[in-house]
Amino acid sequence: MATQSREIRLARRPKGEPGADCFAFATVDLPEPGAGEVLVENLCMSVDPYMRGRMNEGKSYVPQFEIGKPLEGTAVGRVVESRDEKVPVGTSVLSMFGWREAYVAKASSLRVIDSSAAPASAYLGILGATGLTAWVGLFTIAKLKDGETVFISAGAGAVGSAACQFAKMRGCRVVASAGSEEKVVYLRDELKVDYAFNYREGDAREHLQKAAPDGLHVYFDNTQGPQLEAALYELAPFGRVAMCGGIAGYNEPVPGPGNLIQAVGKRLRLEGFIVSDHFKELAAMLAEAVPALKAGKLVNRETFVDGLDAAPAAFLDLLHSGAGNIGKMVVRLRQK
Amino acid sequence: MATQSREIRLARRPKGEPGADCFAFATVDLPEPGAGEVLVENLCMSVDPYMRGRMNEGKSYVPQFEIGKPLEGTAVGRVVESRDEKVPVGTSVLSMFGWREAYVAKASSLRVIDSSAAPASAYLGILGATGLTAWVGLFTIAKLKDGETVFISAGAGAVGSAACQFAKMRGCRVVASAGSEEKVVYLRDELKVDYAFNYREGDAREHLQKAAPDGLHVYFDNTQGPQLEAALYELAPFGRVAMCGGIAGYNEPVPGPGNLIQAVGKRLRLEGFIVSDHFKELAAMLAEAVPALKAGKLVNRETFVDGLDAAPAAFLDLLHSGAGNIGKMVVRLRQK
Repeated sequence: MATQSREIRLARRPKGEPGADCFAFATVDLPEPGAGEVLVENLCMSVDPYMRGRMNEGKSYVPQFEIGKPLEGTAVGRVVESRDEKVPVGTSVLSMFGWREAYVAKASSLRVIDSSAAPASAYLGILGATGLTAWVGLFTIAKLKDGETVFISAGAGAVGSAACQFAKMRGCRVVASAGSEEKVVYLRDELKVDYAFNYREGDAREHLQKAAPDGLHVYFDNTQGPQLEAALYELAPFGRVAMCGGIAGYNEPVPGPGNLIQAVGKRLRLEGFIVSDHFKELAAMLAEAVPALKAGKLVNRETFVDGLDAAPAAFLDLLHSGAGNIGKMVVRLRQK
Repeated sequence: MATQSREIRLARRPKGEPGADCFAFATVDLPEPGAGEVLVENLCMSVDPYMRGRMNEGKSYVPQFEIGKPLEGTAVGRVVESRDEKVPVGTSVLSMFGWREAYVAKASSLRVIDSSAAPASAYLGILGATGLTAWVGLFTIAKLKDGETVFISAGAGAVGSAACQFAKMRGCRVVASAGSEEKVVYLRDELKVDYAFNYREGDAREHLQKAAPDGLHVYFDNTQGPQLEAALYELAPFGRVAMCGGIAGYNEPVPGPGNLIQAVGKRLRLEGFIVSDHFKELAAMLAEAVPALKAGKLVNRETFVDGLDAAPAAFLDLLHSGAGNIGKMVVRLRQK
């Protein structure tokens, strides 16, 4: 049973691309759980591109990480000591407490998950905030309808992979981009998207014209930058853009799209969103996604790295598209 | 009675800024009106910035002007010969047939207007497509609510002037920009906006911070370019942008906003629109605007030029903010 925990803290805010020196390891003593509290050992934790934004200084609407404090994010763990009878020892729980091996917290601040339905790590990915992000962007924000045509940038990333598959489940035509040939093959052969391309090869706009000659109904934007500009040209009238992220500009600013005037003539709607506003939609997503995952109709590809020490490098790797991971990056802290 | 009409045709498509050589004058013989048709003499006609876009080549969702054909746009005229009993001689009618002195058309293609409620030219401006554009952008697209704070660029232009006043009628705090000191005075003293600034002087973002320290709820965008970028920074969470036009880029491309990532964290919605999709809302607008205009609560400032020959220069002038007109540019073809 843990009475100490190692954790990763923000050591300094990056200028431009972050390096290993932005992170500091620390070991802390954990208190005894008080009434209503539990002690949890994490099994696995999530590193996600959006965390780059939280490393910056300044006013933001997702709270910034604080220097000297552990980085936050989702983790799945197991209760090893409990002073809350509703959450007994052995319960699997999802937390937002981030990059640490163990912690003590109020049981009411945790979400109990059904670890018999799917592996624990799936609740960091397609059954968790990652899958919900894809779901909300497609259906709540962009109002994607059955049979429409959707373009998803960074389609081989965690959110993108979920979005490709949810859209295919609804009978949509899916066009997806990625930054390497390996990812393009994954999109085409495993996720069964209708048209996949490497955005580093050829002109994105030409790819979109070939993939969707009648125009796009929806663009699920994970990148901003040149792919957003290409999509604005190729969206059909009354097209919608779910603005999920801007990986093209996380480390350095990228120019804005020079063709936003397209939005006027074509009556486009561009809308940003943050998944944390939409947790109430999780039940609806799980009702569709859990049976599909059990039936083998959803791929939840994961890239695992082992141990807390590996987390910073795994995170930094996410910020280089074309490198590294396919699907969800999971830091495994313990074999189950 | 006219049996001939002078008209202005598109002579060539401009590259960049249009010149007088883009326009050609012609005189045409008018046919006798057939059954259901009327002969109309125009009293006044509209020239508007959006027409610049219609001069370009290529696919667009507002139809392009055709070379050798008259430029289209709204005009108010008087029926001088009628073969439709529902639209007798003397009726005032609004048409979309544009830059010509007289025409023969099916009576059913015209909108009868009440010229006792307001001067004919008002139906080109605050009681016509101009006013409706402001109305739709504020209330239908941006869903501006009573008491919210709205920023309106090109606030002294025709659409901007209407938007400033409709927003004030709903008790909103109105921030508006313009390109000359004279226009700023007009915004402040005649339209009674809460904060007016010259976008050529000082930093737009600093003006917005001073005018709306708690952030903007809505941005009514007539310009795109740097003012859109400034507004994206200063919009409050869940802010809305009604994308009406892009006068900053009509003649030459302007860089896109480099800070669109703001839309994700702040969950902003940017939505383009075209007034012609919304004519069914005209009755609701007139129900509020006609009594207000009669009661002197709405200013419908107009800049008049006289005669068809003056139309091209009046139009070209609209494309230079900081020059020329305040409010609606009206080409008067005949004294009433």
